[in-house]
Amino acid sequence: MKKWQGKCSVVLRPASTKEVSQIMKHCYARNLAVVPQGGNTGLVGGSIPVYDEIVISLGRMNAVESLDPVQGIVTVQAGCILEQLTSYLDAYDLTAPLDLGAKGSCMIGGNIATNAGGLRYVRYGSLRGTVLGLEVVLADGTVLDSLTSLRKDNTGYDLKQLFIGSEGTLGVITRASILCPRKPTSVQVLFLALRTYDEVLRAMKLARTHLQEIISAIEFQDIESLNLVLKHIPGARDPLPERSAFYMLIETSGSNASHDAEKISEFLAALEKEDLLVNGTLAESEKQSQELWKLREAISESLSKEGYVYKYDVSLPVAQMYNLVEKTRMRLQNATAHVVGYGHLGDGNLHLNIVCPKADNDVLSLLEPWLFEQLKSYRGSISAEHGLGQAKNSFIYYSKSPESVRLMQQLKHFFDPKGILNPYKVLPPN
Amino acid sequence: MKKWQGKCSVVLRPASTKEVSQIMKHCYARNLAVVPQGGNTGLVGGSIPVYDEIVISLGRMNAVESLDPVQGIVTVQAGCILEQLTSYLDAYDLTAPLDLGAKGSCMIGGNIATNAGGLRYVRYGSLRGTVLGLEVVLADGTVLDSLTSLRKDNTGYDLKQLFIGSEGTLGVITRASILCPRKPTSVQVLFLALRTYDEVLRAMKLARTHLQEIISAIEFQDIESLNLVLKHIPGARDPLPERSAFYMLIETSGSNASHDAEKISEFLAALEKEDLLVNGTLAESEKQSQELWKLREAISESLSKEGYVYKYDVSLPVAQMYNLVEKTRMRLQNATAHVVGYGHLGDGNLHLNIVCPKADNDVLSLLEPWLFEQLKSYRGSISAEHGLGQAKNSFIYYSKSPESVRLMQQLKHFFDPKGILNPYKVLPPN
Repeated sequence: MKKWQGKCSVVLRPASTKEVSQIMKHCYARNLAVVPQGGNTGLVGGSIPVYDEIVISLGRMNAVESLDPVQGIVTVQAGCILEQLTSYLDAYDLTAPLDLGAKGSCMIGGNIATNAGGLRYVRYGSLRGTVLGLEVVLADGTVLDSLTSLRKDNTGYDLKQLFIGSEGTLGVITRASILCPRKPTSVQVLFLALRTYDEVLRAMKLARTHLQEIISAIEFQDIESLNLVLKHIPGARDPLPERSAFYMLIETSGSNASHDAEKISEFLAALEKEDLLVNGTLAESEKQSQELWKLREAISESLSKEGYVYKYDVSLPVAQMYNLVEKTRMRLQNATAHVVGYGHLGDGNLHLNIVCPKADNDVLSLLEPWLFEQLKSYRGSISAEHGLGQAKNSFIYYSKSPESVRLMQQLKHFFDPKGILNPYKVLPPN
Repeated sequence: MKKWQGKCSVVLRPASTKEVSQIMKHCYARNLAVVPQGGNTGLVGGSIPVYDEIVISLGRMNAVESLDPVQGIVTVQAGCILEQLTSYLDAYDLTAPLDLGAKGSCMIGGNIATNAGGLRYVRYGSLRGTVLGLEVVLADGTVLDSLTSLRKDNTGYDLKQLFIGSEGTLGVITRASILCPRKPTSVQVLFLALRTYDEVLRAMKLARTHLQEIISAIEFQDIESLNLVLKHIPGARDPLPERSAFYMLIETSGSNASHDAEKISEFLAALEKEDLLVNGTLAESEKQSQELWKLREAISESLSKEGYVYKYDVSLPVAQMYNLVEKTRMRLQNATAHVVGYGHLGDGNLHLNIVCPKADNDVLSLLEPWLFEQLKSYRGSISAEHGLGQAKNSFIYYSKSPESVRLMQQLKHFFDPKGILNPYKVLPPN
């Protein structure tokens, strides 16, 4: 992100929950602040020390501990890399309930601490439903064992939910049990070109009708984002004969390849009938699927190569999503900037990115707080999946009421009275 | 349940969030305890006053307020009856993400306050994933507005999760926004007879292979439970030519009837190939589907008609589930009691019920705490979906660690320092 640089002098690498607990006891007694760190792939500076906080890196706690293959429930240590978990599950015909671009380095503990969304969210839903149990070390070193491996357990308050998405400010996640779906036997990837955002929405509606239970991703990107990928990413190539204003990537995951193929044919026929399709391609091999996915997944990397990126990850009603991109483009019309829109269409989650040749305070002052005010008017979220970290914590009031923020601050004080867990993050300065 | 009888002298029926807030302000100032009540269909006495608490009945707040039909997000008041919500959604080709026997009288606020599970859980997952926003009135009358209608929102702590499943002890839920799946166009119901529980498990494995993404329910029941339904429920009839020890009800929900029929044929062929099927029937009409569902859904009612019921709703590893029924039967072999096992097989959720001619302390003393100790040894849950209420709160330590319960007690004190919200429930007496 070229934005944050940590300057701590101590990194601790515990190998067990007991060691994490000992570290926290020590730090609690001496008022030492810590930053829990997983794969360090976050985009809001949440895992980077602001001053001289001690980094607790969970990377050595990387074991998959157990699996119930009947129910598909895996118990895993926080430092396990997402891709390694997915590979492990593969042998049991299971898969992880989440997938994201950073899978090769992000860790499951960090995924949970940030309530990561990603590419399969539209199918498998939130980690709040699929994380069944957590083990967490609290500020004073107490080990909170909520590591049940049950699909259902209504005995008292669901404490683990507080730690999901709290970005390491309430406790250090050390182990988790996760409900894993069956690995689909048939996966198909479609890449479609469309003329207008309105037609993208109509195509999504048809996809939901014809592909319903087999949809595993509905992504979209505009021509600007495709152009940047083709410019910067080695090996990326346009699979279609001519450019169009909008693209959709639709993935299906099912148990019967011929049924899925039939459903896709019906979907494509419906698109043609309504004259929505400019062009499109259906991957015919695993390699082609990966190439199509790359056009979507490599956008973020290509933006960084183009210049300095102002990155916004927002939620708003899906019908208004591209309006916001166009309004931003209008607002920056006199600046040297690419305004790029892409994201998880099926979830109403827009990645709005602005690329400038270099950091540019004039652009920034046009963007903030204007953009947050826009989102507030839509009752949207200023951070759909990336969290707040140290980048967006000051802007929390654009998405949350004063009563809510006050309660959060009180809860923070309740769990971390000395303020040693990932300070200066998530909540606004007092 | 023939167990609890409320004796309060005041029932308040607010018509708006503002009125709920005024009630709570009044009660907070005067130290008056309240019991929030929805449809009053709970099974653990959670909505029934223990002494003279004031009942706040949410039944007048029953409006569906708005719907985003593109995303399938509905905003609804707490007193809306589940079946009415489902009917409303029907017109938009949507359905509620939960379904349960009590749907004709249970209310959505109570469903959320108790984190209701039910029959479609295996498909649509937990309310922790599908409830997107909540409005809650706190103990002192503060209205906490977390009523966003976004699929994704990672701005600060997810406060609403604390109220889901807290059984009215932390706040009064007044409004909710809920993510609703598309209504399936093809629904099929299978009722299968099997010889042993081991064969039931093997059949479930085959169902997951062949029916994967279209499964919407995997229920099981033993012969004892079927016999009681046939004995007590008018119109119930055995659809199969002869009795067997175990039955499964499998429901599929898909978007393409002929694909679903093919998948079901393949599943049945696989069952026959492995010689698992004693007998079975596939509903050929909506009416037949309802008749088959009745054999499963009416068990609870038939038990009440047979006698006094000791009701346990537990989670444990699915492979051990029926062991627990058999152990219980052995333990009660000298008592006059039916021991009945049924439940949500796909979720590892067993309903273990013991019916006696009348309340019988000898039976109870054989059951408790023995049964809870058994569950503890499985790392199971003493309440999978019914909650703790006033029936199971004393037994929380069998499923939760002392550290967890201590934190829950502190959180209760944090949210409700005067202890006026649904007292004597959920948490154990000090």
